[in-house]
Amino acid sequence: MEFRTVARGADSRARAGIIETTHGPIETPVFMPVGTQATVKTLSPEELEAAGVQVVVANSYHLYLRPGPALIEKAGGLHRFMGWPRPILTDSGGFQVFSLSDLRSIDDEGVTFRSHLDGSKHLFTPESVVEIQVRLGADIIMAFDECVPYPASYEYARRSTELTLDWAQRCRAEWEKASAALENPPALFGIVQGSTYADLRRQCAERLVELELPGYAIGGLYVGESKSQSAEVIDEVAGMLPDDKPRYVMGTGLPEDLIDNVARGIDMFDCVLPTRNGRTGTLFTSRGKVVVKNAIYAEDFSPLDPECDCYACRHFTRAYLRHLFSAGEILAPRMASLHNVTFFTALMRKARQAIVEGRFVEWSRQAMTRWSSQNELTEVEH
Amino acid sequence: MEFRTVARGADSRARAGIIETTHGPIETPVFMPVGTQATVKTLSPEELEAAGVQVVVANSYHLYLRPGPALIEKAGGLHRFMGWPRPILTDSGGFQVFSLSDLRSIDDEGVTFRSHLDGSKHLFTPESVVEIQVRLGADIIMAFDECVPYPASYEYARRSTELTLDWAQRCRAEWEKASAALENPPALFGIVQGSTYADLRRQCAERLVELELPGYAIGGLYVGESKSQSAEVIDEVAGMLPDDKPRYVMGTGLPEDLIDNVARGIDMFDCVLPTRNGRTGTLFTSRGKVVVKNAIYAEDFSPLDPECDCYACRHFTRAYLRHLFSAGEILAPRMASLHNVTFFTALMRKARQAIVEGRFVEWSRQAMTRWSSQNELTEVEH
Repeated sequence: MEFRTVARGADSRARAGIIETTHGPIETPVFMPVGTQATVKTLSPEELEAAGVQVVVANSYHLYLRPGPALIEKAGGLHRFMGWPRPILTDSGGFQVFSLSDLRSIDDEGVTFRSHLDGSKHLFTPESVVEIQVRLGADIIMAFDECVPYPASYEYARRSTELTLDWAQRCRAEWEKASAALENPPALFGIVQGSTYADLRRQCAERLVELELPGYAIGGLYVGESKSQSAEVIDEVAGMLPDDKPRYVMGTGLPEDLIDNVARGIDMFDCVLPTRNGRTGTLFTSRGKVVVKNAIYAEDFSPLDPECDCYACRHFTRAYLRHLFSAGEILAPRMASLHNVTFFTALMRKARQAIVEGRFVEWSRQAMTRWSSQNELTEVEH
Repeated sequence: MEFRTVARGADSRARAGIIETTHGPIETPVFMPVGTQATVKTLSPEELEAAGVQVVVANSYHLYLRPGPALIEKAGGLHRFMGWPRPILTDSGGFQVFSLSDLRSIDDEGVTFRSHLDGSKHLFTPESVVEIQVRLGADIIMAFDECVPYPASYEYARRSTELTLDWAQRCRAEWEKASAALENPPALFGIVQGSTYADLRRQCAERLVELELPGYAIGGLYVGESKSQSAEVIDEVAGMLPDDKPRYVMGTGLPEDLIDNVARGIDMFDCVLPTRNGRTGTLFTSRGKVVVKNAIYAEDFSPLDPECDCYACRHFTRAYLRHLFSAGEILAPRMASLHNVTFFTALMRKARQAIVEGRFVEWSRQAMTRWSSQNELTEVEH
């Protein structure tokens, strides 16, 4: 994997870059939809490509449990298994081990947990998690970390950050070993943790940078802390991460968060928001959120988003989509997801264009004004 | 609507024809997937076109209750509402009134029933049912009939057939009246009822033929009677229906039934089988049915059907589809439905080709042998 910056915001820390991978380039800033179980919910690879998706995020925890790395390896790797020819990033499963599984116990070795599917007992270590991701055949793999819940005491966060740092070193060693045997080794990204404690975040970033990894993520955010708290962490950490490596804020979903974080010099984002909210009938549009199930759309024969040219917006009206949701038809979550994913990828493409043209701050101000102009919701499920 | 026969089976009563409608031609024999609620479940119009679908069946009962003909009229008609530019046939709702609704009472006037959605009370008359279908803007509309349950006493069937005949006359009158005001009036098809009683079927067919309708359907079959009983009815009735009008057997779904009925001179078929069975994981393939959720497909990296060139078969393996079904992912029913609909439309396209080339009987024998070669199931949900 290689990364280079092609343009910088004259008026912000925003930057436009390219990540070159074995499965093609990723132009940044980029939004990566989540395909937890080797499928971006409701959508086909063909639709993802049409939506402008450059890279999808799959999940090591889920795929390890079902169908298992052995099966995916036999299938020729995750790209062939899921029919997705472009880059794939796999999450390490750290977040899922802590949020989904039962009876977990953490020690220096790793995490012992029970599957949320069948209660079977498993051990994830930094080494095994790297091995799983290598077997899946991802282009970018993530270090195993503990995602600290919010709020956390300083002492808990301090010890957890130490563990994450120790695990990052072990991931690096395992990744180096595995890479030696591979023609096209994946790139390993480290994850900065440290809860909302500035000194822990700084220490974590500093020591991860010393590991000279191909890229860096900021994790453990958007888990309940305030907007200003996450903003402070990202501001602080982004400034410490190497300029010549991609920076990835994990789990951010709202358009305003994406735009703010691009301004802070972040290159990569992932979130389930476009697909999860799409499935429940919330559309992200150029004029704000539209809860299409609402009665006011019953006779609204305008497109989902008049400024979008996705298949759903070109062919269907809000009235039809509302009917499909009322009738419980699968085409409804499909089309809402397709539109939302298109909206998010287009948002980042427009941000990139604005950076290249040296007008990012102006563009982002306009985009935010229009985004807020018709917003129906004040809170969205994260 | 116009119908003409372009070729006849030298070796059977099979025929290849073309139905010309305002929304384009329909080459027969044709399989019509069912889009009950103005959507063929899980599939987009674009996918239907790619699957070779020429015409879809929508349902008057369902669309009358939700979203209502007034809304669809405001949307510019059903074609625009659902984004489907090709022909649409609407069922009269007779079958659904009798199978889905509560507290129905039948008299000469029509049927009073309660909505299965909210219990509200409604009256369907032959006149109102034609009016609804005209407002929806369908290309082919069906007369309102009573679908006689199986088994039925001779006396019940006799009286019901009289009612259906009386209603057919009233539908015809209403259709003529409505057509006078329309630039592109729909074609009205009559429905032959009469349960399994040969004399009732004959009488019904004779008297419907006297009404000189644009097309004729055989209804009330595949409701529990034996294969030989339905075969006898179709044999008898098909021979009595005018040669220059399309013939439609309603609700047939199994590939063997389609092929047998093409040999009997039937031109049109509809069934929920490809989509319903697709959603539960049964694939129809050139070698028979494949229950893809079964463990034997866990490591089967071959396409769903090696002889199919649909998107699902070109991009995905049985192992991947099985994983998607296990994981409860929507892409699974989507891809299974897409393949199944493609299989059914291709089956009728191949049948047509064989008729044109004067080798239908030979083709059908080969197709049936291969279809049975690997069949997993002896019974399928209808």
